[in-house]
Amino acid sequence: MILGKVIGNIVSVIKDEKYEGFKLLIVQELDMEGNFKDNFVVSIDLIGVGIDEVVMVANGTPARYTEETQDMGLDSIIIAKIENLIFEDKQVQLE
Amino acid sequence: MILGKVIGNIVSVIKDEKYEGFKLLIVQELDMEGNFKDNFVVSIDLIGVGIDEVVMVANGTPARYTEETQDMGLDSIIIAKIENLIFEDKQVQLE
Amino acid sequence: MILGKVIGNIVSVIKDEKYEGFKLLIVQELDMEGNFKDNFVVSIDLIGVGIDEVVMVANGTPARYTEETQDMGLDSIIIAKIENLIFEDKQVQLE
Amino acid sequence: MILGKVIGNIVSVIKDEKYEGFKLLIVQELDMEGNFKDNFVVSIDLIGVGIDEVVMVANGTPARYTEETQDMGLDSIIIAKIENLIFEDKQVQLE
Amino acid sequence: MILGKVIGNIVSVIKDEKYEGFKLLIVQELDMEGNFKDNFVVSIDLIGVGIDEVVMVANGTPARYTEETQDMGLDSIIIAKIENLIFEDKQVQLE
Repeated sequence: MILGKVIGNIVSVIKDEKYEGFKLLIVQELDMEGNFKDNFVVSIDLIGVGIDEVVMVANGTPARYTEETQDMGLDSIIIAKIENLIFEDKQVQLE
Repeated sequence: MILGKVIGNIVSVIKDEKYEGFKLLIVQELDMEGNFKDNFVVSIDLIGVGIDEVVMVANGTPARYTEETQDMGLDSIIIAKIENLIFEDKQVQLE
Repeated sequence: MILGKVIGNIVSVIKDEKYEGFKLLIVQELDMEGNFKDNFVVSIDLIGVGIDEVVMVANGTPARYTEETQDMGLDSIIIAKIENLIFEDKQVQLE
Repeated sequence: MILGKVIGNIVSVIKDEKYEGFKLLIVQELDMEGNFKDNFVVSIDLIGVGIDEVVMVANGTPARYTEETQDMGLDSIIIAKIENLIFEDKQVQLE
Repeated sequence: MILGKVIGNIVSVIKDEKYEGFKLLIVQELDMEGNFKDNFVVSIDLIGVGIDEVVMVANGTPARYTEETQDMGLDSIIIAKIENLIFEDKQVQLE
């Protein structure tokens, strides 16, 4: 999984009603120091996070294997809110 | 999912009749400002979009998990038309 | 899906008889102008194409979801022959 | 699969109780000499490894095909602890 | 699929007994001339190849769709030994 920060959301017109009720968030990837990388992904929010929160994102097929997302053509889901990265010699606080 | 703009379509000869009736569109990827990136993808249009419209594309296996595309050997589908990107301090209008 | 041109084929020793009868082609990726990119992929030919023809390739898991390729450990199939790319202001002829 | 070294772990708030009890580790990728590469992945530990151990990581869909992880929206698992890389002319000790 | 040369093997401690009996090989990727590229992958050998042999590798989910590898959390398998690449104007001998 990758780490990212929620930086925005998307207003879209989706044809299929099974997608309704899900929030589409813009997540910019973070490095191990908690700094922004260049790339971003549009990801479905399954856990209720907000702007500026740090999240863990699963990409690819696994995005459809939760109860909420089965049978949806999705390739990215937010599955956790991240609070800290703990290394041997330091701790990166992300909240 | 990624963001992209529909910039063209493709005339192809497809052997398998289960693909017939689907439009193949050339989608060039966009960054968070709505500017073009270098890469593009050929994607199946499930929602009826046209040239110059901004779309959300799911790549990889999930492309087969919609009712329309099951059992097709596809790796990219257009699943939404995007209207706006909303950030904390600005809004990017895409229509 | 990506666009590519068939530039060669491969002579291989494959253990599993379920792969027999399929042609393995070397497909070099093309950009939107029909020019070669650096990367290539070895792809299974399901439709009967030849050297110098332009094709559409699906990569990843979807490669196993056609009737011909189910239960094969493949990650790339040729699913269409491409004739033209049609943009708003020009047309790229590929045959 | 890729090779990586466990360099940290993550404190997270995960909504779905089926994820509870699994350790999320930060794994930095290694090259063939056992040196660090730039990229890292957050991976679920199925085998009980610790900081500074070298592991083999499977990414993408396969992360859900073990008994422990089925039906979880995961895209990365640690499936082995690596002790040595054996080449024709040398051996790289990783413990 | 990609082309690569077997350059080494791995000594590992794998928890799950369903992985036992499979050889883990280090495969360095090749370009179309048969020259080494920078990247490598750790891949399961299903066909019995040795050091310095050129192989075709399938990555991602398809790695679990052979009879031998189903229900294993793998993302890379060696599915063929490659002997020659045949282009219109030349032939690259790989043995």
